[in-house]
Amino acid sequence: MGIISIVGSGQLARMLIQAAIPLGVRCQVVADRQDDATLGLAACVPLASFTPPPVGAPPLVTFEHELTPMAEVQALAASAVLRPSAAVMALANKARQRVALASAGLPVPRFEVVGTTGEIRTFAGGNWPVVVKFAEGGYDGRGVFVVDGDAALGELEPVLEGRELVVEHCVPIEREIAVLVVRRPSGETAVYPVVETVQRDGMCREVIAPAPIDAAIAARAQQIGVAVAETVGSVGILAIEMFVVGGDVLINELAPRVHNSGHFSIEGAVTSQFENHLRAVLDWPLGDTALRSPWSVMVNVVGSAAGDPAERMAAALAIPGVHVHLYGKSWRPGRKLGHVTVCGDELDEVRRRAHAAVVALGGELMW
Amino acid sequence: MGIISIVGSGQLARMLIQAAIPLGVRCQVVADRQDDATLGLAACVPLASFTPPPVGAPPLVTFEHELTPMAEVQALAASAVLRPSAAVMALANKARQRVALASAGLPVPRFEVVGTTGEIRTFAGGNWPVVVKFAEGGYDGRGVFVVDGDAALGELEPVLEGRELVVEHCVPIEREIAVLVVRRPSGETAVYPVVETVQRDGMCREVIAPAPIDAAIAARAQQIGVAVAETVGSVGILAIEMFVVGGDVLINELAPRVHNSGHFSIEGAVTSQFENHLRAVLDWPLGDTALRSPWSVMVNVVGSAAGDPAERMAAALAIPGVHVHLYGKSWRPGRKLGHVTVCGDELDEVRRRAHAAVVALGGELMW
Repeated sequence: MGIISIVGSGQLARMLIQAAIPLGVRCQVVADRQDDATLGLAACVPLASFTPPPVGAPPLVTFEHELTPMAEVQALAASAVLRPSAAVMALANKARQRVALASAGLPVPRFEVVGTTGEIRTFAGGNWPVVVKFAEGGYDGRGVFVVDGDAALGELEPVLEGRELVVEHCVPIEREIAVLVVRRPSGETAVYPVVETVQRDGMCREVIAPAPIDAAIAARAQQIGVAVAETVGSVGILAIEMFVVGGDVLINELAPRVHNSGHFSIEGAVTSQFENHLRAVLDWPLGDTALRSPWSVMVNVVGSAAGDPAERMAAALAIPGVHVHLYGKSWRPGRKLGHVTVCGDELDEVRRRAHAAVVALGGELMW
Repeated sequence: MGIISIVGSGQLARMLIQAAIPLGVRCQVVADRQDDATLGLAACVPLASFTPPPVGAPPLVTFEHELTPMAEVQALAASAVLRPSAAVMALANKARQRVALASAGLPVPRFEVVGTTGEIRTFAGGNWPVVVKFAEGGYDGRGVFVVDGDAALGELEPVLEGRELVVEHCVPIEREIAVLVVRRPSGETAVYPVVETVQRDGMCREVIAPAPIDAAIAARAQQIGVAVAETVGSVGILAIEMFVVGGDVLINELAPRVHNSGHFSIEGAVTSQFENHLRAVLDWPLGDTALRSPWSVMVNVVGSAAGDPAERMAAALAIPGVHVHLYGKSWRPGRKLGHVTVCGDELDEVRRRAHAAVVALGGELMW
């Protein structure tokens, strides 16, 4: 019986636990306060009192987020086998990540690592807007700022000053795409078909699988994705967000974990990202990443003033072919509470149903 | 937040819990001793101390087995909403079941309800063999006896005498098939494609979806299945096992619950039997029962002397497209420990992979 400890107890841990059940793998979550998303589904231990589960097998630890301070990740590595490793988790720092990718010759936007608004001003060279990102601590659009000039920069000074930052020019993005690569400790690697991600306010709202893009661009994105996974030595799922710019791709950022852009794979691929992450963590053979339908569309259910989606399930399930995933979290406007996935032959119809399901659930609208 | 209490804590409860997670539905199991299959995944309350969960919603109770004495099911009905009802659960009694089906004009083998070996001898009229079944308490081939003459009957006398029994002639079975019908309290009904079930020693070993049979026979089986569900007023999944005999179908027996013949639907159908059972119990709209692949094959993993399948996962997962479901139960020869499902375009190849996976897991061989 494998036991995996998952740092974090949100929806990604919930969906990992769900995938672990048929594999006969037990999970515990490592969190200071257990989120509703995993309550009743797994035992919870605080990070500070983490000790390996009492079994003969190696104490395997994986992560559903990259918010744990690196000192604590390093401490964990002393008593457990981290998959991915502490070195890969360290790449959650966007400055370190960018430097690593650029020095490996992988395509990233022109950037600089800075620490003051003065350095940002120098980088911009009068050429606004620029994008400024916290190297650490940002997610879902938080910690990312589009700065359109000196005045705006001045206003942000209290927020930015004294932090490690990445600055880059706004690139003319044609599309945002993501590549999920899964890799075992033994080196076996598998890559999912490229997906398109539709963002609003920095939060991923919709994912279309496969991305409706030129096959040559998709192939190049997959090739870059695999190169990134091999360069950094990832284990488990590595999500690589990219921009399509001028007919080529640039890497935007990495996430060393299961990722919102891969939720479609629960129904849309032969093996879900969650199962493949667990298989990789256990160093088991990876599963087929092929799509099961011509099109899959995933839309996040973000809480709105309309109320709790859990009370509106019947309306959503009345729409044919809709798969609803609720995360067991209490309703709050702006909070990711679940997602829906629809698979089918016609993209327009698949999207229409997915959007209708989100409307039925009272999710925040993005279109 | 829906809460469903499941009477029983074996693998069927485990797979119901798995399907409940994305629906945002919580489950508790009702069992005197919790099986490993649900340990850590749901709270457990003994039947004797069952009280409705402390929520405003109606206390919904469903069943993963039909082994609870009817007096206790009736008692439960006083404090909870049973889905299916106590009247449907009473049809688990094979004598009552047969009488109900026959009097509704539904096709069953010629049978008699008896209580003594003398009555069995009279029914046989020298025309051996006959099949004798316990009306209650049998499953997976236990409580079913093929009796080939007076001598054999005499030997069985201590086992049979004083029990309610169903006796019938051996019919020349061409194939065994099963139809799963799901029905809501409001009456909405959906039927899964007919599957072939391959039995050995009375235990279902393999399921092929769809059954490779004539379309007219399949349509008739589905029609009979729906008629049975409407006749008995089932709620949730009702499994109807049938024989193909002389180009027509006869109903063998019913199970008012999710069923081994429907495990393929987790990957093989748009909506699994487990999700549809929960949707029906909650009186939510039913999901699409269509197949997702031309062929799906499910094979049970029955413990053999080769040891624990949980220790051999890597070998099974090395076979492409194999979905392994372990039940978290401790290994014992002859025990159902899990199942594998493979979906694909070519039946021979799909079966070959499913069988290879069972071999890799060290399951008992049936071919």
